[in-house]
Order: sequence, then structure tokens, then C-alpha cells
Amino acid sequence: MSRALVTGGAGFIGSHLVRRLLSRGREVVVLDNLYTGSYENIEELDGAGGLTFVKQDICEADANAFFKAYGPFNEIYNLACPASPVHYQAQPLGTALTSIKGVLFSLELARLSSARLLHASTSEVYGDPLTHPQKETDWGNVNTIGVRSCYDEGKRVAETLVADYVRAHGVDARMVRIFNTYGPRMDACDGRVVSNFIVQALQGKPITIYGDGSQTRSFQYVDDLVDAFELYMAKDTATLDGFFARHNLETRVLNIGNQGEFTIGELAQMVIAKIPEANKDILFKPLPGNDPRRRRPDTTLARELLGWQAKIPLDTGLERTIEYFRGKCAANISNSNKEHKR
Amino acid sequence: MSRALVTGGAGFIGSHLVRRLLSRGREVVVLDNLYTGSYENIEELDGAGGLTFVKQDICEADANAFFKAYGPFNEIYNLACPASPVHYQAQPLGTALTSIKGVLFSLELARLSSARLLHASTSEVYGDPLTHPQKETDWGNVNTIGVRSCYDEGKRVAETLVADYVRAHGVDARMVRIFNTYGPRMDACDGRVVSNFIVQALQGKPITIYGDGSQTRSFQYVDDLVDAFELYMAKDTATLDGFFARHNLETRVLNIGNQGEFTIGELAQMVIAKIPEANKDILFKPLPGNDPRRRRPDTTLARELLGWQAKIPLDTGLERTIEYFRGKCAANISNSNKEHKR
Repeated sequence: MSRALVTGGAGFIGSHLVRRLLSRGREVVVLDNLYTGSYENIEELDGAGGLTFVKQDICEADANAFFKAYGPFNEIYNLACPASPVHYQAQPLGTALTSIKGVLFSLELARLSSARLLHASTSEVYGDPLTHPQKETDWGNVNTIGVRSCYDEGKRVAETLVADYVRAHGVDARMVRIFNTYGPRMDACDGRVVSNFIVQALQGKPITIYGDGSQTRSFQYVDDLVDAFELYMAKDTATLDGFFARHNLETRVLNIGNQGEFTIGELAQMVIAKIPEANKDILFKPLPGNDPRRRRPDTTLARELLGWQAKIPLDTGLERTIEYFRGKCAANISNSNKEHKR
Repeated sequence: MSRALVTGGAGFIGSHLVRRLLSRGREVVVLDNLYTGSYENIEELDGAGGLTFVKQDICEADANAFFKAYGPFNEIYNLACPASPVHYQAQPLGTALTSIKGVLFSLELARLSSARLLHASTSEVYGDPLTHPQKETDWGNVNTIGVRSCYDEGKRVAETLVADYVRAHGVDARMVRIFNTYGPRMDACDGRVVSNFIVQALQGKPITIYGDGSQTRSFQYVDDLVDAFELYMAKDTATLDGFFARHNLETRVLNIGNQGEFTIGELAQMVIAKIPEANKDILFKPLPGNDPRRRRPDTTLARELLGWQAKIPLDTGLERTIEYFRGKCAANISNSNKEHKR
């Protein structure tokens, strides 16, 4: 049976990927320290067969020991890293080190296992982009010493380590630069714009916009992303090598994101329109440092290679996400009522 | 007595800094694994008092153990890292890790010692710059996945780690982005343009130019750089904080380099003109990947803060460097004659 490791598998994206892999009949090992992930995200899967959960900090994990205990793997998905400013700015050194040590662990484990590796990079490697939309050949515009740098530069050097490991050891790695992604099981408290707006609207609080709301983002529903992971990992090595060589690209990096572009102000209005109990007020706050003004992926390469493009419209994705948060809020209220009765 | 640690102290720049520190009456500990440094560079100093040489790989060094064995330090200079493409492309993973682990070791040791830390960053963080000359506020234009990336991205994330360590732990760190530097005790074989040209000319071989020779560089004589180190480390914390705050700069980064700009073709002609035995032929070879086209520092901040600017003209510096290599070639010939007689 095919065995997969998902680092960060109890996180938002990881928990969707784990479900997909289990549904394909894979045995899945999840490595997560639950710093930003949550056991609740995979709890219903644990014990149903096929899933092994290892609570460990990837910074402390040793590839050899892990290989002996849980390996070998056919596929490794490296998703472990705090990915929201709220979390990574609370632990800037830990975030950079998770990015660095995590990718080294994953690369070494892939080498030991002769596994295919999918490394989750990020659109943050483009920083505040000088070109628009962003192509894989863009080098990015990133401040090395700002408050967001721990994540951006940690993820940049992780790409470097993948590229050099592939050149040195021939590991079969694939990298995806993930653009803004949303959906059920996002952390309600991590300060991301979609979950922030939905939770504020459900609670009848004014929606908070940082800056004037004219900055744009693309919003990808998580199922689209997991589709791309699956298609990318299914490609054989020779096809990939041929494709990237034809495009004169040094390594196997693909942008994965939704090409739709919305202003933050538009997003706020969409959320308000979908939530009857929403407060219609908007609270404007100053933009934090180094926040990118525009971000939208050019996904031509993913379309050509994988026949993939993000399909789920923001409208539909928002409805599903609102439904999730509505359920969660209700559960929290009922929990806190129970709490109260005790 | 004031104690200083110089990581990479047996390297080209390190060995000049160590001499300067010893001449000021400091006790100096050198940590170097001699991967690119050479014991010969500091041999004459060893045993003369004041110098302790520790042969160790900074990637294996533990800050607590090192502190107990050799600390505390008043000043730490972190210069450890292969810095020429010949070396770092031979060991790309090792280079990135040296940059990362080396700066973490130095930061932690500075914290334990309450030491002042000077971290040697590099003009390579600017990559192939989009602005000219380069200012400290420029974010750089760097490929994350190319063959030079191990050095460039390793050094970029090292700056990030310094900035975050300063914010988290209040370490008194200073960063210098060192531009092209040359002088005696450069490695003759590391493929840098000044030493390459001089050695080729002394050996009567044609000078090799990569590309058409129109790409420009600034060339800083090593004594100027060491002057800047000394002036920067002598500034008290309050002065620095005031200066950088007035300039609205997040951290203490200074460009250190010579503002003169020469094409590689001009450099070749200057070297040929100074070496009577030089072959006047020039061999043009293709430019390697991601080689920057232009590079020149804007050193306004260093001039304002330190009253410093590079003083030694290329002419003078080249003469001193040629003299060094002439002596070294003669010594090598006499050594190989001895070799032959045995």
C-alpha cells in the first residue's frame, strides 16, 4: 500500500490533503506539533484506520530515526510551517527555523525513502511584487529585515535548499508556490482576512479592514489546491523534466492559486451580503508594515502541465466556509453554555 | 582585557581583522574549520600571544559549550562562510547551512556574552540589482533556486535571523553588507576576479574574462573594510539607535564598499599594465548563470554615521596585492624546487 507523510497534516491545508489521501486508499502519517495546527482538524479520522498521528516538532525530528520508526514513504508532503502573520510574528525565529529545518528533514527523508516530495512554498516569496500577475520566473521583492521576513525569507531559503538538494542528491521534489487559500478548518483566530471577515460578520461585529481596502488578493478555495497537489504528484519524473526543460526553467516550481483578483473591500462586501446577521459597519485600521499591495498568480504553467486551474468561484467557496464557521460558532456557544451549567 | 571572537578568522578578510584587533591589544579567538580559510593566513600570529585558534566547523559548534570554553567575549565578528562561487557551488548545502547555523551560533554567543556582534553580510543580498547604486533600503533581486542561491539566500535569511534576534533578545548587533573586496591573502584559486587576473598575469597566461567584460564592479581594498569594522564597532548603542531611527531604518545595516566603479575589462587592462611579464591576450568565456551586471554601493549612511569612506585607490591596492601574489608565486616555485630535490 502506498504510504504518505504529511508534515503539518493537522493544519488547515494539511487536514484537507490528509482526507484526500485517505480517500485514495493511502496510509497516511501526520507529523505535527500542533503549534498552529489543531488535533480537532483530524480527530474524526484518527482511529478509523489508515492514519498515524505523530505529535512532534519538525525542528526536533531526526530523519533517520523517523524513517526507521515510520518509513519508508512513497510520498512526502512538507506543509509544516506557521503561515499567518499572527502566528509567525509571535515566533519569528521559530518560524524561520521550522521552514529551514522542516525542509531539510523532508528532503533527507525523501532521499532515504526514494520518495516523491511535494514542498509547499508560498506566494510570499514574491514579497511586494514588481510584476503582475506573478510568474514562476519572477525573483520577488522581499525585505530581508522586516517583521514579515522570518516567513518570507525562511520560505525563500527553503526553496534554495530544495533546489540544491535536487541537484546534489537527485531527490524527486516538486515545489508549489501557494497563493492565498481559504476554506473550512481555517483557524478562526489567525488573522487571515477571509476567516476574520466571516467570524466578525457572524458575531455581528464591524468588519476590520487594514489600509483602505483597495489592496488586492486572489482567493483560492482549498479543494482546488488539493486537486493541484494530487495532479502534480501523479506526474512521472520524465514528463516533469521534459516540461520544465522545454520552458527553460531550472527547477520544478509551480504557482497554485486562483486567478480571480478582488480588492479587500469587495471581499468584505461579499461576506456582509452572505451573512444576514452581519453588522454593516467597516472599521479601517492602518496597514501593517511590508504588506503587499497586489498579489495574483499567473498559473499558465500549472494549466499547461497539469490541465489544472482553480474552478471554485469565490461566491461558492465563501458560502461553504461561512457554513463551517457558523457550525463552529454554534458548537462553541453550546460548549460555553455547557461550561456555564457545570 | 577586551576579548574578541572572529569566526572565519583564518580567511582572507578575517586574517586582516585579526591582525588589526591584536594590534589594538585585544585577545582574539579565531574559530575556523579551514574549509576556505587557511592556517597559513594566521600562522605567524599564533604563539605570539593574544591569539587562540580553534579549528572547528561552526555548523557543529554549540554556543553554550563554546561560551564555557572560550567566553565571555566583548566583541564577536561573524565572518564564517564560503564566499566565492568556486567554493560555495562545490558545497551549496554546506554554504547555506554555514550561513544559517553560523549566524545563530554567533547571535546566541553574543546573547550569552552580552557582546557586541558584527555580522558580515554581503552585497550579494542585492542580487542583480534593479537600482543603482545600491542603497541599504533596496530589497534586492535574487533568484531563490539558481546556482548562486545557496550563498545569496543563505546570507539573506541570516540577516533576517539577526533582525529577529535583535528584536526578540536585544542583542547589540550591527550588520555590514560587504561589497567586492580584494587584497593580500586572497585565495589564489577561488575564482575571484582580482586574484584570477593577477595570478594569470604573473604566470604569463592569457587573462580570462567571463562575458564581454562590460559588467561593472566596485573594488574595495581590504584595509578600508577593516577600518569600517573598527569604526562601526566603536559606536555606542544609543548613537546607533538614534542614527537609524532618524533615517527610518528598521535595523543596523550598512553598505561597506568602494564607490569607484570599473568594468571588468578595465580591471584586466590595469592588471596587465602593472605586471611586466603579463601575456596581453584576453580569453573571453561565457558568463555564468545569474551573474549580476552592475554592482556599486551607495555608502552615504556609512559616511554619515562613521565618517568613513573607502580611501585606497584601485591603483594602489592592486600594486600591494600584486606584490603579495608575486611573493607567494616565488615561494611556491622555491617550495616546488625543494620538493624536486628531495
